[in-house]
Amino acid sequence: MRPTRDFFFRLADAAKAETLPRFRSGLSVVNKEARGFDPVTEGDQAAETAIRRLIEAEFPDHGILGEEHANIRMDSEQLWVIDPIDGTRAFISGVPVWGTLIGFQEHGRSVMGLMEQPFTGERYFADGNKSWYFGPDGERQNQVRDCGSLENAILFTTSPHLFQGWEVERYQAVQDRAKLFRYGVDCYAYCLLAAGHIDLVIETVLKPYDVGALIPIIEQAGGVITTWDGGRPEAGGSIIAAGSKAVHAEVMEMLKRR
Amino acid sequence: MRPTRDFFFRLADAAKAETLPRFRSGLSVVNKEARGFDPVTEGDQAAETAIRRLIEAEFPDHGILGEEHANIRMDSEQLWVIDPIDGTRAFISGVPVWGTLIGFQEHGRSVMGLMEQPFTGERYFADGNKSWYFGPDGERQNQVRDCGSLENAILFTTSPHLFQGWEVERYQAVQDRAKLFRYGVDCYAYCLLAAGHIDLVIETVLKPYDVGALIPIIEQAGGVITTWDGGRPEAGGSIIAAGSKAVHAEVMEMLKRR
Repeated sequence: MRPTRDFFFRLADAAKAETLPRFRSGLSVVNKEARGFDPVTEGDQAAETAIRRLIEAEFPDHGILGEEHANIRMDSEQLWVIDPIDGTRAFISGVPVWGTLIGFQEHGRSVMGLMEQPFTGERYFADGNKSWYFGPDGERQNQVRDCGSLENAILFTTSPHLFQGWEVERYQAVQDRAKLFRYGVDCYAYCLLAAGHIDLVIETVLKPYDVGALIPIIEQAGGVITTWDGGRPEAGGSIIAAGSKAVHAEVMEMLKRR
Repeated sequence: MRPTRDFFFRLADAAKAETLPRFRSGLSVVNKEARGFDPVTEGDQAAETAIRRLIEAEFPDHGILGEEHANIRMDSEQLWVIDPIDGTRAFISGVPVWGTLIGFQEHGRSVMGLMEQPFTGERYFADGNKSWYFGPDGERQNQVRDCGSLENAILFTTSPHLFQGWEVERYQAVQDRAKLFRYGVDCYAYCLLAAGHIDLVIETVLKPYDVGALIPIIEQAGGVITTWDGGRPEAGGSIIAAGSKAVHAEVMEMLKRR
């Protein structure tokens, strides 16, 4: 039995109660360190604890893979994949583009997922069939757009500094051809892609919990998300997400290791 | 006579009515071009027109310097400095870190200013004496923080690609020592600095309307904002803003052309 939307929303609300009060909590970096107080670490751990408590109560036989606490029941057919605060650098800097990521896998495949940005009041949710947006400007179904070509694409990556060795020039070649590129938006970029506002996200060194929730949000909005060599993205690593199948294929070819 | 807070808020509301409906308006880049429809240009022009109309009615002898329309009465002692959508790349990409900037100068000095981010519902306002925040999480007075040293500083710049020639390695030396750096946040970064969430903004090739509104928001929160050589920032160009006077002085020394 799959979890309901209401259950996902209860998880998001529980996480929000731990993360939002610690966002922009106002102590300087210096003071935080002097006092051993670190709002992002605290928020990360408390949010994941709150999410796990609800899952354990409702689905005691499901597995849980999370960023902050030990993985449990990893051989279960149902697996929850949790990143309580994705985009910790945004969180630390006061920029509301971080998110709580809660994904749900069956037999190793991401089928449901949620991204919550509590400051802006935005929530993206993939119900197993369709991908939805809930925000201050209303509710609607997510639908990617087809930008037609790389030259028309708006491209996001977290940071160009994350690419290593041969990846650097391959990524640079893609960026040089894109219409516009931006850095530093983490999970928020994948959601903008699902909603049809941007066209391409290229990243590397992702963990399973960085993408678990985002895969169905993109796929159920009509988008494509794979590893750089075209494989399933559940394990993370190097990822390409695109609204256009043709642009995805073109970029995958450009990023191929030769 | 200086304009009131209420008048500034009327200007911000008039701009919001033109910008927010065009944000994430959902047409693909390809379709927009095919139809000659460009939401950011339309929003920019319509918002500045709306702001100018109100100023002309209330203060017909004041000068106006804006990004989108011709400058008028530039020899007036009172000058409004307007950027209807600062951060057009963020606007185009659906990321809510762009803003409407409305500054007010007396005798060439920025004394009042407002930054409006209508999607998140955040408004920063410098009333000539103090700097204020209004947002979904309440209202409060802005106060910069003193991070103590460059090694503790969170640094923002719009893009490292904007630095040219000798600036590149000077900027890089500062970035290498900072605790954390982020790209791509435009006016929103200066407001985070005024509110004490980040510590340092370094930029170049700014126009007067990019900084006019932000100068008093930072100065009246206790921060320092100057050109790279320590001069008044009203004309734009290369800018350093900091919450710490000591860090500002240190960074100015590091960025000095030798």
